[in-house]
Amino acid sequence: MPELRKDPVVDRWVIISEERAARPMSKWVKARNAAEEEAFCPFCEGNEESTPPEVLSFRDDGSQADKPGWRLRAVPNKFPALRWDGDVKIETDGVYEKVNGVGVHEVIIETPRHDEQLACLPTERMADLFRAARMRILEFKRDKRLNCVQFFKNHGPESGASLNHSHSQIIAMPVASKHIKEEIYGSRRCYIEIGKCVYCDIIDKSLARGERIILENADFVAIAPFAPRFAYETLILPKEHSHRFEEIEDDAVDSLAEIFGELMKRVNALLDSPPYNMMLHTAPFDSANGESYHWHVELMPVLTRVAGFEWGSGFHINPVAPEEAARLLRKV
Amino acid sequence: MPELRKDPVVDRWVIISEERAARPMSKWVKARNAAEEEAFCPFCEGNEESTPPEVLSFRDDGSQADKPGWRLRAVPNKFPALRWDGDVKIETDGVYEKVNGVGVHEVIIETPRHDEQLACLPTERMADLFRAARMRILEFKRDKRLNCVQFFKNHGPESGASLNHSHSQIIAMPVASKHIKEEIYGSRRCYIEIGKCVYCDIIDKSLARGERIILENADFVAIAPFAPRFAYETLILPKEHSHRFEEIEDDAVDSLAEIFGELMKRVNALLDSPPYNMMLHTAPFDSANGESYHWHVELMPVLTRVAGFEWGSGFHINPVAPEEAARLLRKV
Repeated sequence: MPELRKDPVVDRWVIISEERAARPMSKWVKARNAAEEEAFCPFCEGNEESTPPEVLSFRDDGSQADKPGWRLRAVPNKFPALRWDGDVKIETDGVYEKVNGVGVHEVIIETPRHDEQLACLPTERMADLFRAARMRILEFKRDKRLNCVQFFKNHGPESGASLNHSHSQIIAMPVASKHIKEEIYGSRRCYIEIGKCVYCDIIDKSLARGERIILENADFVAIAPFAPRFAYETLILPKEHSHRFEEIEDDAVDSLAEIFGELMKRVNALLDSPPYNMMLHTAPFDSANGESYHWHVELMPVLTRVAGFEWGSGFHINPVAPEEAARLLRKV
Repeated sequence: MPELRKDPVVDRWVIISEERAARPMSKWVKARNAAEEEAFCPFCEGNEESTPPEVLSFRDDGSQADKPGWRLRAVPNKFPALRWDGDVKIETDGVYEKVNGVGVHEVIIETPRHDEQLACLPTERMADLFRAARMRILEFKRDKRLNCVQFFKNHGPESGASLNHSHSQIIAMPVASKHIKEEIYGSRRCYIEIGKCVYCDIIDKSLARGERIILENADFVAIAPFAPRFAYETLILPKEHSHRFEEIEDDAVDSLAEIFGELMKRVNALLDSPPYNMMLHTAPFDSANGESYHWHVELMPVLTRVAGFEWGSGFHINPVAPEEAARLLRKV
């Protein structure tokens, strides 16, 4: 059984998951780069029996679960970081605190075809992905053991992806994540200071000044944040204030897919189809900070390596000012 | 001039340093991997004119600055993330805050020879490195504009190193780093709760129980922390309580070099000489938390890639329990 352990000094949990070591470990970085040379892909149509049984799929009428005929398929991760079964048990021993590794780790396979990547799918297929994420999160929310969900995508071996076949992942956990907590506290502090949601303030100011805006549509803006950790890091923010992604309306899902697709086209054109990470930030299930928090999607092209300075300090060195990044992504 | 920008929500600064883009940027990850094929090395003995003038060196009697005859040499970074000149100016604009990029970014070249790596140097030469770091930090401390220093080493291209020639770096900044602040706050909270330094508590408990101990000598312990982010992550803690590395005695520097050298031998034997990051955590210059904070060195072998889950959540998934990591490093 995996374990969640809390650092005794810093409010950061770590998932100790020895099951995951079943994946190649020594020389792992190199092994991952070699992943694309593997002949057999468990995510391809026709290989459905290679994954655990599906928990959700969008598929042709009349086709059967775990058989061909799907366009999107969600399955439990075969090497899950957390395990579904059991109750949450907290153990403390002086300054040490741990929780048994209860949670969910699922994979959303975005296409049955090995040679298709998310960014090249038509908008309605991208909307399928966000719709599937919403459905899974709503399902996790009914489980009282869980409190926080991290939906994310790794594209390309440099981003940490271990399989090339286009997919995203969702991990649902009993504790709120470090970064979500920091954003919840920070936006609450801002709310007290400025009397409004800081993300709404950022949107209003950026639109009014034309500042660091990359794209805008009916429901979303894509902006280069004021202090981005990485070159060309982008924030997709819903214009309508909401702290919960899973409450998004159907129309807005289409709008999100549209702005994400357009952003990816521009990123791929400007940066030669870089590896990237995409992450959703949405409020923990028990969050009472509805007026101060604002869900969003973060996109980070992987162009540099994180090194000792960043790991040591938690600060980042970014060689591209966000104003310049936004200008280049706008005009490409 | 570089700029320090603070994220409006989270207490995290970013250094926007467009000068650094003079280094290869697009396809940067790949460019860095290719670095070792470069013929000319600015850090080799005989090429002293390729670096800015040295600020410190340990060299043969009678040899001249910026000429051959040295065994360690500290120079300003040619592509500094921060700039030495000017006063610290804070600018705020609503929720946005920035500081001009005043600071220091130096490189410590650990050997005149291209084919020598730190981990293979004799102990007294490793002690030279920690002694040089101490001297530079004491120098930075006299500059009232600076408050926090990050000493770190990247070894191997996967760790973010852009040059193969063995070297470390120091960045001194006007603001305290995010991670140091988190540790300062967290250890202060523990101090209030348990009535002693949490790091001292960890050392005492680990030694008493033989728990997660990797190595021990007269002045230091090397332990696998309770909740390590990465497989084989190791903490080197001074047994004597102190929040300031720069106040270390000469004998203890030798002792630190000894335990670091022995740890590196074991890591290299067990993990086939992996790339790694090494980071020093020491209190900000203005810190008043002398009784609750405890300086230390962190070593992180780079065996996996950080991916969307980690970037999104701030949590980590570690496939090797620290008890197992310590056992393997002890017996190797």
